[in-house]
Amino acid sequence: MPEFFNVLPPQQALAALLEVLPSPAPACEDVPVHEALGRVTATDLVSRQDLPTFPRSTVDGYSLRAADTFGATEGLPAYFSVVGVVPMGRAPGVSVNLGEAAGTYTGGMLAGGADAVVMVENTQQVDADTIEVVRPVAPGENVVQPGEDVREGESILPRGRLLRPQDIGGLAALGITSAPVARRPRIAVLSMGDEVVSPDREPAIGQIRDVNSYSIASQILRDGGEPVPLGIVSDNYETQLEAARRGLEHSDALVFSAGSSVSSRDMTADIINALGEPGVLVHGLSIRPGKPAILGMVADKPVFGLPGNPVSAMIVFDLLVRPVIYRLAGCLAIPEPARTAARLDRDLASASGREDYVPVRLRRNGDNGAEELVAEPVFGKSNLIFTLIRADGLVQVPLDKAGLYAGETVTVTLF
Amino acid sequence: MPEFFNVLPPQQALAALLEVLPSPAPACEDVPVHEALGRVTATDLVSRQDLPTFPRSTVDGYSLRAADTFGATEGLPAYFSVVGVVPMGRAPGVSVNLGEAAGTYTGGMLAGGADAVVMVENTQQVDADTIEVVRPVAPGENVVQPGEDVREGESILPRGRLLRPQDIGGLAALGITSAPVARRPRIAVLSMGDEVVSPDREPAIGQIRDVNSYSIASQILRDGGEPVPLGIVSDNYETQLEAARRGLEHSDALVFSAGSSVSSRDMTADIINALGEPGVLVHGLSIRPGKPAILGMVADKPVFGLPGNPVSAMIVFDLLVRPVIYRLAGCLAIPEPARTAARLDRDLASASGREDYVPVRLRRNGDNGAEELVAEPVFGKSNLIFTLIRADGLVQVPLDKAGLYAGETVTVTLF
Repeated sequence: MPEFFNVLPPQQALAALLEVLPSPAPACEDVPVHEALGRVTATDLVSRQDLPTFPRSTVDGYSLRAADTFGATEGLPAYFSVVGVVPMGRAPGVSVNLGEAAGTYTGGMLAGGADAVVMVENTQQVDADTIEVVRPVAPGENVVQPGEDVREGESILPRGRLLRPQDIGGLAALGITSAPVARRPRIAVLSMGDEVVSPDREPAIGQIRDVNSYSIASQILRDGGEPVPLGIVSDNYETQLEAARRGLEHSDALVFSAGSSVSSRDMTADIINALGEPGVLVHGLSIRPGKPAILGMVADKPVFGLPGNPVSAMIVFDLLVRPVIYRLAGCLAIPEPARTAARLDRDLASASGREDYVPVRLRRNGDNGAEELVAEPVFGKSNLIFTLIRADGLVQVPLDKAGLYAGETVTVTLF
Repeated sequence: MPEFFNVLPPQQALAALLEVLPSPAPACEDVPVHEALGRVTATDLVSRQDLPTFPRSTVDGYSLRAADTFGATEGLPAYFSVVGVVPMGRAPGVSVNLGEAAGTYTGGMLAGGADAVVMVENTQQVDADTIEVVRPVAPGENVVQPGEDVREGESILPRGRLLRPQDIGGLAALGITSAPVARRPRIAVLSMGDEVVSPDREPAIGQIRDVNSYSIASQILRDGGEPVPLGIVSDNYETQLEAARRGLEHSDALVFSAGSSVSSRDMTADIINALGEPGVLVHGLSIRPGKPAILGMVADKPVFGLPGNPVSAMIVFDLLVRPVIYRLAGCLAIPEPARTAARLDRDLASASGREDYVPVRLRRNGDNGAEELVAEPVFGKSNLIFTLIRADGLVQVPLDKAGLYAGETVTVTLF
């Protein structure tokens, strides 16, 4: 049973999948804006109004006609009659003419007839009704004009945008209290293997608890998808095919957590091909760990055969499934995972023609005065889930390198 | 009404608050592990078992006694009788003696008496019951030993750990199906101002919709807190004090989205002092935007007076409220916000003695062959929420610099 994979680098494998992945508008649902954080806009959103709707002061001071302040200096101030105060949240109710000013608060509306606001710091109270202004203001100074933030008809958030806290705030500012967002992509997860039992069971000798259903479901949640757990099925072709078929019917994509042996990997490929056309697209990746991964399409739905060992499964997930979940949600710019630079603390051997992903722990090293971040590889066989738990991130040894040297600055993808 | 703040740099202000913030064990709740992603462990978790519980093969091949392979080469292979196959998920049911081997799958248990596994690639099938082995294996080779991943009694996740997908997987591996996590910190948000109306209302002239309740609540959610919206209250001391007092009773911290005018900021400080000891700790930050921020403690609960303008409020939130939410959840290592390096595309003026936060948009520049990330400031008055919506992140101009130059490499905090 020797195996010959037609292995591809992960980026090339992903590109092959994305090329055939159709990009229809994902199913859309309206959600209240306060629940829309992290969701992806399903339509282009356009402002139905100017923001602000009225000229607003950016300072505490006096609104007045700028021209009346021209030439004012400390030595030769301009005098103004204070004709009132503009209340917050109401129509000004006061207008200014030549030589008149009205008290105005930050965020408040300008008095009628005023075209600028002089900061209180540049005024002196002369008596109850009179101030002197010691510095001139230009027309529009210290004022936000109607439509200066957003104009009516302006695109505010394009389709495919991942909503951040400020986007939620912007929607509220425009009175958009519910937003059309893409339904979360449903990703079915099928855990396979005669040796796998549910975590709530005590494994008998030779059995192990199901890790991948949990770690993969958490990755799906983190990336904005909705995990659809299909449970654990034994290493039987018919059972697996039937479970996969049912799972795929109600989901947008399917992830197999395959058994680890060659025979069960071959069975996963056969099942993907049996589910429908075009079937398996990529069988094997030039990475370690993660080589036995399988990518396919069944009609318009992506299908992933992840290696059974939990470390490989998680690493392949991040390289291939994560971007596809964002794409299924219609997300145009897939957010980069968080990364940091660190100095590698020992040599890492690899093999040319293969990308290695090595778990590292980060620590701050203050020995040389300036604190630096040091990446310390967490060694352990590649199928030990706790190597990832003890790690803060992954260092990639690129395809064209046979290793990395101690002291090199490397990029750590936080994980 | 001139104002003189006793302004502090934000890091110093945060340190002053954290110093007086008590660190009792936060209230704890048990949640099913598949809902525990992003939660913070409330106790030290210890493994109740070895993982794996039995010696597991890391390859497909044959389990056998390593000593029997010593000296085997291509030219002089060692011969083995195949005495059976170890089934997946069951006790092996087969043992090996001198010169015997048993078929063994990746992840499967070793045959009784075996201490190593030879990869199938290093064997040749001679006849139905006989193989030759062409390379020796050492004892333990291609085997994960019991307890090699985790040992019984070993600490697996310390208290105060933010749970990631692999942590969830590790808990499942050990049969821990529900985990003790800190209750999400409840952060009350009070939006103040006579001019502020709910987003579902059409503002009259002089009124604006409430942005901060939405953007701040989203930031709280993002950082693992539970927002407790207290609604909008008018610029009236008694009303605000009463709303704040009630809000604080049922929350772990309180955020005021203050009115923007000096008088309403002063009122916020007065209210914080009236709520209880020690009251206001810091009044003003040496940053722009965000200078009018207030930090205080009421008994053991932190209270924040955020500036009314939404941009300042969000920036101050990330500097001061975000770390406090993590601390309230008992999180020991506050996760760094995502950052990236980029080349600044124009000069940015600042003032020495003040940290400036400038929204920037990121674009890829491919002009010089190698693609680089360029940070382009999004200009606009600091109170325009859409400057943040059009931006990808913030560039900080440090306290001791009077600006940054075009072409400098800057760190962009993704926002």
